[in-house]
Amino acid sequence: MAGLASTPEPPYHAVIFTSTTTDRTDGYAEAAARMIELAGDVPGFLGVDSARGGDGVGITVSYWESEDAIATWRADAEHTVVRETGRTRWYQEYELRVARVERAYGFTRVRPRPG
Amino acid sequence: MAGLASTPEPPYHAVIFTSTTTDRTDGYAEAAARMIELAGDVPGFLGVDSARGGDGVGITVSYWESEDAIATWRADAEHTVVRETGRTRWYQEYELRVARVERAYGFTRVRPRPG
Repeated sequence: MAGLASTPEPPYHAVIFTSTTTDRTDGYAEAAARMIELAGDVPGFLGVDSARGGDGVGITVSYWESEDAIATWRADAEHTVVRETGRTRWYQEYELRVARVERAYGFTRVRPRPG
Repeated sequence: MAGLASTPEPPYHAVIFTSTTTDRTDGYAEAAARMIELAGDVPGFLGVDSARGGDGVGITVSYWESEDAIATWRADAEHTVVRETGRTRWYQEYELRVARVERAYGFTRVRPRPG
């Protein structure tokens, strides 16, 4: 079982990327994994959560310390090339939203299985 | 193939809910579907995107016109009961982030399959 991103106290920024893919997804999974690896090297990257369901809808939310960090990631050369492949080949549709996280709270089960 | 939420021009608000579940998920899918149906009746609800991947990480992002709309949804009686069931039974871990969407842009493929 994978875990969830652990982020500091707000405020910080979130990039919410929702997508559906075409049926030509060769190379997509590898590129997605590589992008998460690359993003992790950008100063100000705080974490990422990602899921794609059986109906084809995918959501990736990345968390960032500042708008500058998001801009640095956007300008990354390899990321730029992969975005272009996304538009020409992989994505049927996507929406990218940049948001400021204002408050957050969490829950972690203390015992693995409830009584 | 499911579609993505269609939202107006920012600013608006997003509630980013990430979770992992226990192995006791009886009733969970029905409750999740019912919550999306109920949220849709709240004035100021703008849309929702949801995905859960094979590794168990789930992400639901709902979009709202105002903080008041989020507060109304939070106070809904049926929603409150279901949240409690989530904590006692379904969720291993979750994180809820309330964010203000500041900008957004999208892409829709014109032709179903690229040439």
